[in-house]
Amino acid sequence: MTDNAPTAPNVSIALLHYPVYDKNHQIVTTAVTNLDLHDIARSAKTFGLHRYYVITPVGEQRTLAERIRAHWLEGWGASYNPKRKAALELMQVVDSLDTALAELEKYYGKRAKIVITGAAGRQNSISCPQLTELFRDVDQSYLLLFGTGWGLTEEVFNRADYVLEPIKGRGAYNHLSVRSAAAIILDRLLGER
Amino acid sequence: MTDNAPTAPNVSIALLHYPVYDKNHQIVTTAVTNLDLHDIARSAKTFGLHRYYVITPVGEQRTLAERIRAHWLEGWGASYNPKRKAALELMQVVDSLDTALAELEKYYGKRAKIVITGAAGRQNSISCPQLTELFRDVDQSYLLLFGTGWGLTEEVFNRADYVLEPIKGRGAYNHLSVRSAAAIILDRLLGER
Repeated sequence: MTDNAPTAPNVSIALLHYPVYDKNHQIVTTAVTNLDLHDIARSAKTFGLHRYYVITPVGEQRTLAERIRAHWLEGWGASYNPKRKAALELMQVVDSLDTALAELEKYYGKRAKIVITGAAGRQNSISCPQLTELFRDVDQSYLLLFGTGWGLTEEVFNRADYVLEPIKGRGAYNHLSVRSAAAIILDRLLGER
Repeated sequence: MTDNAPTAPNVSIALLHYPVYDKNHQIVTTAVTNLDLHDIARSAKTFGLHRYYVITPVGEQRTLAERIRAHWLEGWGASYNPKRKAALELMQVVDSLDTALAELEKYYGKRAKIVITGAAGRQNSISCPQLTELFRDVDQSYLLLFGTGWGLTEEVFNRADYVLEPIKGRGAYNHLSVRSAAAIILDRLLGER
């Protein structure tokens, strides 16, 4: 198996900077964070995903994310750290969830199913093993959504085909960073044990 | 169960900034990174650990880490985001691995066992389920070590009581951030499924 073997070819991940809640339940656009790009790209590459979408409607923020990507793909970073290049190649910066979905539909010829992880859990939650089982049907693609700020809005939740059960630790505290949550979910869904 | 219930009371985690390798296999001290403090503290709190040690021999770096901690514990951050406070309370900044071990020995009355995760795997590797089983003996405490830079040195590996099997994704690529790796390992060891 080579470094570039796509081994979860029908699964992609997206990080939304809009629409998400802030601390006071207002709908806002959050800022792109450098380590969100790197950490989630590295996790996506490790677990063999098709693509990592970074979604923000703010043009300047997209330019910033593109510049970071270009640094590691073409700039000095590419020779300094080829492993980073391999990860950030998966990353694509787009203006909206609909753009990401349209691109996936064009690639696969079929609409991707939307999967959301909620810290709270929902009535129609499915478990990680159930979703892993669904992934076996490679004719269907999936897009896992993660929110920044204080989480994805109801509007986004209402578009989900599946809501994934929340990550449980060892107590009531449940405030992982989005980078940690994405890593754990990908490991639960696609990690080899 | 309250937010503060210690549910893995004999397990701690440490992030070493020295001694670690750089890209060229030289032994160096890396810089403290803000998000390493937050992300790993939040993961440690979520999985009910006893303590999170941030280890660096550089006094100025310890001062920086202490200032970040104080901001969220006592400063403006404490009221802005109490969840962050609850996580960073677990964090302690010390100058060396030996200081962390001495403190744990004082607290538990017995030396902690050192557990290391290696990306490469070792002859004496144990699996996550095996280590989870060992954790059940609460008379024995454990310290999980994570390295920054290009990983922990041989000297540190030689001190380990246990080397944990590496995280496998879906291919040859295996370059998770330390924040993601720590989150996944804690979930594998202590997460509820």
